Amino acid sequence: MSILKTIAQIPLFEGLPSEQLEDLAMIITEQGFRKGEIIFSEGEEAEGFYVAVKGRVKVYKLSAEGKEQILHIFGPGEPFGEVPVFTGQRFPAHAEAMEESRIFFFPKASFVDLVRRNPSLALNMLGVLSMRLRRFTALIDDLSLKEVPGRLAAYLLYLTAEKAESSEIELSTTKAQLASLLGTIPETLSRILGKMTAQGLIETDGRVIRILDRGSLQELADSGGRL
Amino acid sequence: MSILKTIAQIPLFEGLPSEQLEDLAMIITEQGFRKGEIIFSEGEEAEGFYVAVKGRVKVYKLSAEGKEQILHIFGPGEPFGEVPVFTGQRFPAHAEAMEESRIFFFPKASFVDLVRRNPSLALNMLGVLSMRLRRFTALIDDLSLKEVPGRLAAYLLYLTAEKAESSEIELSTTKAQLASLLGTIPETLSRILGKMTAQGLIETDGRVIRILDRGSLQELADSGGRL
Repeated sequence: MSILKTIAQIPLFEGLPSEQLEDLAMIITEQGFRKGEIIFSEGEEAEGFYVAVKGRVKVYKLSAEGKEQILHIFGPGEPFGEVPVFTGQRFPAHAEAMEESRIFFFPKASFVDLVRRNPSLALNMLGVLSMRLRRFTALIDDLSLKEVPGRLAAYLLYLTAEKAESSEIELSTTKAQLASLLGTIPETLSRILGKMTAQGLIETDGRVIRILDRGSLQELADSGGRL
Repeated sequence: MSILKTIAQIPLFEGLPSEQLEDLAMIITEQGFRKGEIIFSEGEEAEGFYVAVKGRVKVYKLSAEGKEQILHIFGPGEPFGEVPVFTGQRFPAHAEAMEESRIFFFPKASFVDLVRRNPSLALNMLGVLSMRLRRFTALIDDLSLKEVPGRLAAYLLYLTAEKAESSEIELSTTKAQLASLLGTIPETLSRILGKMTAQGLIETDGRVIRILDRGSLQELADSGGRL
């Protein structure tokens, strides 16, 4: 895939006009890392941020005894190292490729220069992040809904909202984890998914869930949620 | 309180150096709204964004039948209307003061000008939003923990992380809603809060919870969470 197409699919740059995507493409360095290779180390000057394109990256700290504590694992499309870059601090942890990975590096100096020439780049990114935060806040509220079907409906709508155009979700968690997030047990979750399927709200295929009737799911979430 | 101090307490501007807070103070218009007064309407040009300073604001849409559907309620410190401003769209909904409110208005043109002169303002805001998103993502993961005490520990740590320096939280939800978010019933939640208090992890006083032993709470969250 071209660099431009890849950038356009990074959620942080969602909806940017093509001139700005082209500007970004000009400042990127594409880097390959082998499994176990260090990307940056704690205490290093944060001279740019990264977006994983292929593979997975773990960000971790080492305890005084040398024990590794993983803070986050980042996969395709996810930025990492951007918080210290944006706030002018050093990297607070180490980053290492967990498998063969392809990564975009955005040098801070060039990025700042882009923003100076074209503030709307930063504004658009602020808009994207604000929107995602708002969705998260709404999700947390919805997870407090009284009935589990309503929580599930809200969670499915949240996942598709994050994915923009697609109405298909591939669950990245196990059913047991999802059940736990929704405050129920896997058996009840399966029963609710079955009921939603029977009512034509969704269609499931292994870990893939397709939303068929967004309106009814929305009503279920809004009503507090009894199927 | 001075405008400067008030701005410094808005989470979106967390950690900004004082020159930048002063720059922001220069472009703000402070506005008062009476209960029921309209702040902006759907379809209006988004010429600036707002931060609630005092009072509460509801953002809502009207259905074809004139039925009001509330999308969000914003309280002190929370920005609203910023997504369309940042992404260059019109306001997608109405905003109305639910009570007597004091609101800061940030005109888009002046804000863009500030960012052009000083890109680090936008970068810092991007850093703040990225950090908050990361905390939310971690929270969603933690809410999938197997045991309720671990979920509660993770949620309390999340709430204090959002509050920066303070280790005191005032719950904005009812205990029933919190129990629901954690996938349990109010009785079990009370029992766990009692146990945490007995073990010296926290101290509760009505809706206020004070964290006494952050390390042990963190261990509880990290271990998956049985008290």
